[in-house]
Amino acid sequence: MDREPNHGHCHECGITHAHNHVHENQKAVVNRLARAIGHLEKVKRMVEEGHDCSDVLVQLAAVRSAIDNTGKVILQDHMRHCMVDAVAAGDEDAIEDLCRAIERYMK
Amino acid sequence: MDREPNHGHCHECGITHAHNHVHENQKAVVNRLARAIGHLEKVKRMVEEGHDCSDVLVQLAAVRSAIDNTGKVILQDHMRHCMVDAVAAGDEDAIEDLCRAIERYMK
Repeated sequence: MDREPNHGHCHECGITHAHNHVHENQKAVVNRLARAIGHLEKVKRMVEEGHDCSDVLVQLAAVRSAIDNTGKVILQDHMRHCMVDAVAAGDEDAIEDLCRAIERYMK
Repeated sequence: MDREPNHGHCHECGITHAHNHVHENQKAVVNRLARAIGHLEKVKRMVEEGHDCSDVLVQLAAVRSAIDNTGKVILQDHMRHCMVDAVAAGDEDAIEDLCRAIERYMK
């Protein structure tokens, strides 16, 4: 979604942005999470039904990979929008919050 | 669960084990997966409700960590039971299957 010329307060960053603050990938992120949940439910059924451990591990690795990629999309989205505005507004708390989140996410 | 003295065919490894082949941690694994699903559903709701990206990333990292730990439990369980029997029976296919799964899981 392109940035709109109107201004609005962002409940996420706590600052006023020069656009209606809608994460362009919010729907995509929700869809990715919904797919990851469905995939994880399938893995749970596999374990309940006693499927081969190797197969379970392969499917679990696929879910983990999907979650990793979703995290990357959230981070990129946040960098492109909230962070750009936070930096412009000199909002160092928002930047530090994200740095802490990245540190916890990357480890 | 201690190994039982009776013999049974294992549908997972395809070989006959010197015990009723029940993964001792199957229930624990199912419970871990159920918790991870619930946690991921919470993360999805956070995104839908527009929560702070940093908070979403922290929760997503927690789910990933839970999935990693579940994979470890599955692997350890498999090593302690199926693999011990597969090695004893000279079932190299089962060993190779697991090695491939580990390779995909670790990357």
